Amino acid sequence: MRSNIADAISTFFLEYETPRQVVVKNRRVGVVCRLIQLIVLVYIIGWVFIYEKGYQVTDKAIGSVYTKMKGVGYAKVNGVQRVWDVDDYVFPEQGDASFVVMTNYIMTMGQQQGNCPELPGKHSCQSDEDCEEGDYRRGGHGKFTTLSPNLQAESSPEGGFPLHGMLTGKCVSETKTCEVSAWCPVENDLVVPDPALLMAAENFTLFIKNSITFPMFGIVRSNLVKRVNLRKCVFHEDEAPLCPIFRLGDIVRLSGFNFQELAVQGGAIGILIDWTCDFDWDRKHCLPKYNFHGLYGDGELMSNSSVGYNFRSAKYYMDGTTEKRTLMKVFGLRIDVVVQGVARKFDIIPTLTTIGSGVGIFGVATVVCDLVLLYVLPKRDFYKNMKFKYTIIDEEKPVLQMDKPVMDSDKE
Amino acid sequence: MRSNIADAISTFFLEYETPRQVVVKNRRVGVVCRLIQLIVLVYIIGWVFIYEKGYQVTDKAIGSVYTKMKGVGYAKVNGVQRVWDVDDYVFPEQGDASFVVMTNYIMTMGQQQGNCPELPGKHSCQSDEDCEEGDYRRGGHGKFTTLSPNLQAESSPEGGFPLHGMLTGKCVSETKTCEVSAWCPVENDLVVPDPALLMAAENFTLFIKNSITFPMFGIVRSNLVKRVNLRKCVFHEDEAPLCPIFRLGDIVRLSGFNFQELAVQGGAIGILIDWTCDFDWDRKHCLPKYNFHGLYGDGELMSNSSVGYNFRSAKYYMDGTTEKRTLMKVFGLRIDVVVQGVARKFDIIPTLTTIGSGVGIFGVATVVCDLVLLYVLPKRDFYKNMKFKYTIIDEEKPVLQMDKPVMDSDKE
Amino acid sequence: MRSNIADAISTFFLEYETPRQVVVKNRRVGVVCRLIQLIVLVYIIGWVFIYEKGYQVTDKAIGSVYTKMKGVGYAKVNGVQRVWDVDDYVFPEQGDASFVVMTNYIMTMGQQQGNCPELPGKHSCQSDEDCEEGDYRRGGHGKFTTLSPNLQAESSPEGGFPLHGMLTGKCVSETKTCEVSAWCPVENDLVVPDPALLMAAENFTLFIKNSITFPMFGIVRSNLVKRVNLRKCVFHEDEAPLCPIFRLGDIVRLSGFNFQELAVQGGAIGILIDWTCDFDWDRKHCLPKYNFHGLYGDGELMSNSSVGYNFRSAKYYMDGTTEKRTLMKVFGLRIDVVVQGVARKFDIIPTLTTIGSGVGIFGVATVVCDLVLLYVLPKRDFYKNMKFKYTIIDEEKPVLQMDKPVMDSDKE
Repeated sequence: MRSNIADAISTFFLEYETPRQVVVKNRRVGVVCRLIQLIVLVYIIGWVFIYEKGYQVTDKAIGSVYTKMKGVGYAKVNGVQRVWDVDDYVFPEQGDASFVVMTNYIMTMGQQQGNCPELPGKHSCQSDEDCEEGDYRRGGHGKFTTLSPNLQAESSPEGGFPLHGMLTGKCVSETKTCEVSAWCPVENDLVVPDPALLMAAENFTLFIKNSITFPMFGIVRSNLVKRVNLRKCVFHEDEAPLCPIFRLGDIVRLSGFNFQELAVQGGAIGILIDWTCDFDWDRKHCLPKYNFHGLYGDGELMSNSSVGYNFRSAKYYMDGTTEKRTLMKVFGLRIDVVVQGVARKFDIIPTLTTIGSGVGIFGVATVVCDLVLLYVLPKRDFYKNMKFKYTIIDEEKPVLQMDKPVMDSDKE
Repeated sequence: MRSNIADAISTFFLEYETPRQVVVKNRRVGVVCRLIQLIVLVYIIGWVFIYEKGYQVTDKAIGSVYTKMKGVGYAKVNGVQRVWDVDDYVFPEQGDASFVVMTNYIMTMGQQQGNCPELPGKHSCQSDEDCEEGDYRRGGHGKFTTLSPNLQAESSPEGGFPLHGMLTGKCVSETKTCEVSAWCPVENDLVVPDPALLMAAENFTLFIKNSITFPMFGIVRSNLVKRVNLRKCVFHEDEAPLCPIFRLGDIVRLSGFNFQELAVQGGAIGILIDWTCDFDWDRKHCLPKYNFHGLYGDGELMSNSSVGYNFRSAKYYMDGTTEKRTLMKVFGLRIDVVVQGVARKFDIIPTLTTIGSGVGIFGVATVVCDLVLLYVLPKRDFYKNMKFKYTIIDEEKPVLQMDKPVMDSDKE
Repeated sequence: MRSNIADAISTFFLEYETPRQVVVKNRRVGVVCRLIQLIVLVYIIGWVFIYEKGYQVTDKAIGSVYTKMKGVGYAKVNGVQRVWDVDDYVFPEQGDASFVVMTNYIMTMGQQQGNCPELPGKHSCQSDEDCEEGDYRRGGHGKFTTLSPNLQAESSPEGGFPLHGMLTGKCVSETKTCEVSAWCPVENDLVVPDPALLMAAENFTLFIKNSITFPMFGIVRSNLVKRVNLRKCVFHEDEAPLCPIFRLGDIVRLSGFNFQELAVQGGAIGILIDWTCDFDWDRKHCLPKYNFHGLYGDGELMSNSSVGYNFRSAKYYMDGTTEKRTLMKVFGLRIDVVVQGVARKFDIIPTLTTIGSGVGIFGVATVVCDLVLLYVLPKRDFYKNMKFKYTIIDEEKPVLQMDKPVMDSDKE
């Protein structure tokens, strides 16, 4: 019994099967078929392998980013000059990948909690009856729920300002506006300084430190490249594309905006650090590319509601026992540093998968040629006989082997 | 010589090989085999191609998010009413994708550095001997290293409070508690206000601006859709699913929580902006979907230690030459706006790879049928003869071609 | 007509084609071919299926992270002791995934806007002529544009300090340095305290709450595992690898740094929470792994310019009507908590794709063996005759079927 199995195994190893084939000597089919096979071959080798690098695995990077601004600016408001240094104009302070550089502002000093009249001209009243206590909103549109004014204000500052607080029910005769319970005096942001107060921001510089890890390959890279002299360099798209120090004015220009315009209302800009690495080459060729673009959808959406970037920042202090705050409406450049890293490296699995599916596609070529051979050519019946051997067998009937098969009646 | 090669090439191009096949006319095998082939075909065309869209490449989006809250709230503590506007209740101020909206708080005013007794009832002492100088912790559990009290406090406020600072070695007779060196007076957060002080937050609104880029396709999209009127809309899951303005109360409700409960201890909620786009269609169909969910693992983990969200925020000021601070324990909704974008588009490579591996699977069908034919059917030997042609060849022996092979003795 | 089609269909379903094959009984080719087939089989089953789990789909996780520090530190500067609690030493306050723990600082109290002399020794002058009004920079290198000083300062504090503001044109005789318009007095950060002032930070603890979602599988996981007792545990790489509470000193040690050194100049550390889950098993096996590493590229880049982490933080207050600020240069550990989650689960599509491309690779084995058989072996012509059947056909000539083909003259 054992020797039988051993025999079977040895027989198995001494044989091998290979398909029998018909070599069809036909000009038309031959040329068509060889061309199809050639195209498939060129596609697999040229495109999938060489162009798309189908023999490589890809890995996405994990990155971390730190930023640091440098520069001092001066702004003159009502004849008083103010110094603005990094600690004053960058939000938040700790060097995040996403931060805001103030370029313009509206400062409201000495606010404290209390009751005060709304801004003149917008929430006007004749008598206390026009200011219903507890209402959040009034204006040209009549009454609103407590919700809608906020929404309206978001999209259309012109369409009616929301109140700065709840109405107390009093109409202040001096300003002819309703009194609200809020931080007083209320901020007046109807007029935005133009040109921007901190135009000096154009020359501020941004230093970006970025390190990325490709966990699959165990490779770590940093954007601080040895050959770049950090002491002297400033990023330039052609001359210093690897320098990680950027002039704010350059960033704005390279994202297609005008600094002077953007500085007034603020804006959002993305800095994309793109690492596309091929680790079949030396890792020193794995270098970052910096791209700059505005963060505002495509053209169809551009409207007043989607440009501009502002937020409010308050500094609190105690004046004796009274809590006060300095409110700043900050307009600025919001900069998002985004890291995108893709690395590729040779790997046996995608290579064999690509070859395997290439062989599969090769089979498709044969199928197409066979269709031509068996259904299109005038001599198709002849080729059918060449290609196929028919068995006529049924459990009831005796076995018949037909090497030169009897043609089926419906075929001839 | 040249003409020989040319001849070989021309011969090569005028021929083509196609496998010779046996057509087995057998009801059982035929039906089985055709069915398997049909299933494979349906699988490849129906599932892989049409359902899973195997003819498309996918690309992940890079997104950026800005947020803006609106709304004013009022809180009454000890009969004094306080206004809370956006600058007061949102942390951080600059409109990040991840931020906290305060809904409840414990305020400790006028803290300054010094020595003061601990909270009554928790760190009690009879004499100075109970308060060993330099100790960080005491209580029911006896002494601890400087490390463990912090950990205990994290998970079990009930299990013994950590001290607010290092013991000075004195027992304060008025409170019968040890004296600590800390910011004084120490915060008393044993009782959390319930209902939450800023229940008005339910009506605050959140505006989300989100733009995404699909780098592979060079397409940029924004969630500010033209057809949505930002002046009037409020997000509603059925009626206004594209409006990017959200009521805080709705966000909480849609993530399956109760605002009143959540507001007291705080909580964490994720807003997932889901972009699933098919760029074989017009890009205007590429629209965001908003999903809301609590950020707390699955049910098995729900316990007291994993709910609630709070942190402390301090406002520093100078009282003469003394540095003081107002400490706030802030309970609130932490909102994380996460963007997930996947786009698909027709591409020749996945198409051909899918076809190629489909043809490969077709081959599997034939293999299965052959196994049935050659090893299961009663007439298997007959089919073996049909399918295989045997050569008996060995280097020593003369070549023998056996068109009708002599059966091997171990087979018959 | 209908019955004809029905006949054709029924005929189609009762037949099936299988390729005719030659069984080549040759020791050498047989062994070579079987070995190649065996290798392919082992590769497909062993490597692609079992090792690489080619039968599974993968999904990337969406994660959210909250952090909370605990601990109180004391620092003695000029004989005065200061308490530092969480609210003082963590930036930002709200528990982000990326935050800074202060370990060292330089505090400049009572700054106000005005004119004051630059730091002694660095920007020295003999007379007003050495201090040109409006200049931003002077020193050993002569004059610079307003830009370059910032850059230089970034990379080389030794190479010449930038000015703290614009020169007023005056040379202050007491300090022999130029006067600048800036926040005064200017910060003196020439000497960094060593050892670090807040060495106590080594014992501070960090609590990380992390929940992840695998959207494709609809599974949510949290790092708060039931079996871990949050009251008592501290992370230890061997003994408590699931405890989400970390000693800061341990974090630094596990990332390969020395706390004492790092604390002085600060540094950046990444905590990678790695979820690699196989949902073919119970989801309770899906647990996080914590990895710690410095965030500084690879060795080739290590230089003075890439280590250290600092930023400035200012606290503003009003002294009467004068705005003042306390400036802190904060040196600290920047901790980035990064979540990486990959889950796998059985899916029919990758399974069949893998099988399909495996069958394709099997085809490659046959092709290789055929090449050996038909071009290398001495009896190659005999095998050619076995494998191929030739047709000699041309549209002009009569059809000739040649079962035992006439050998081509160029072959024999």
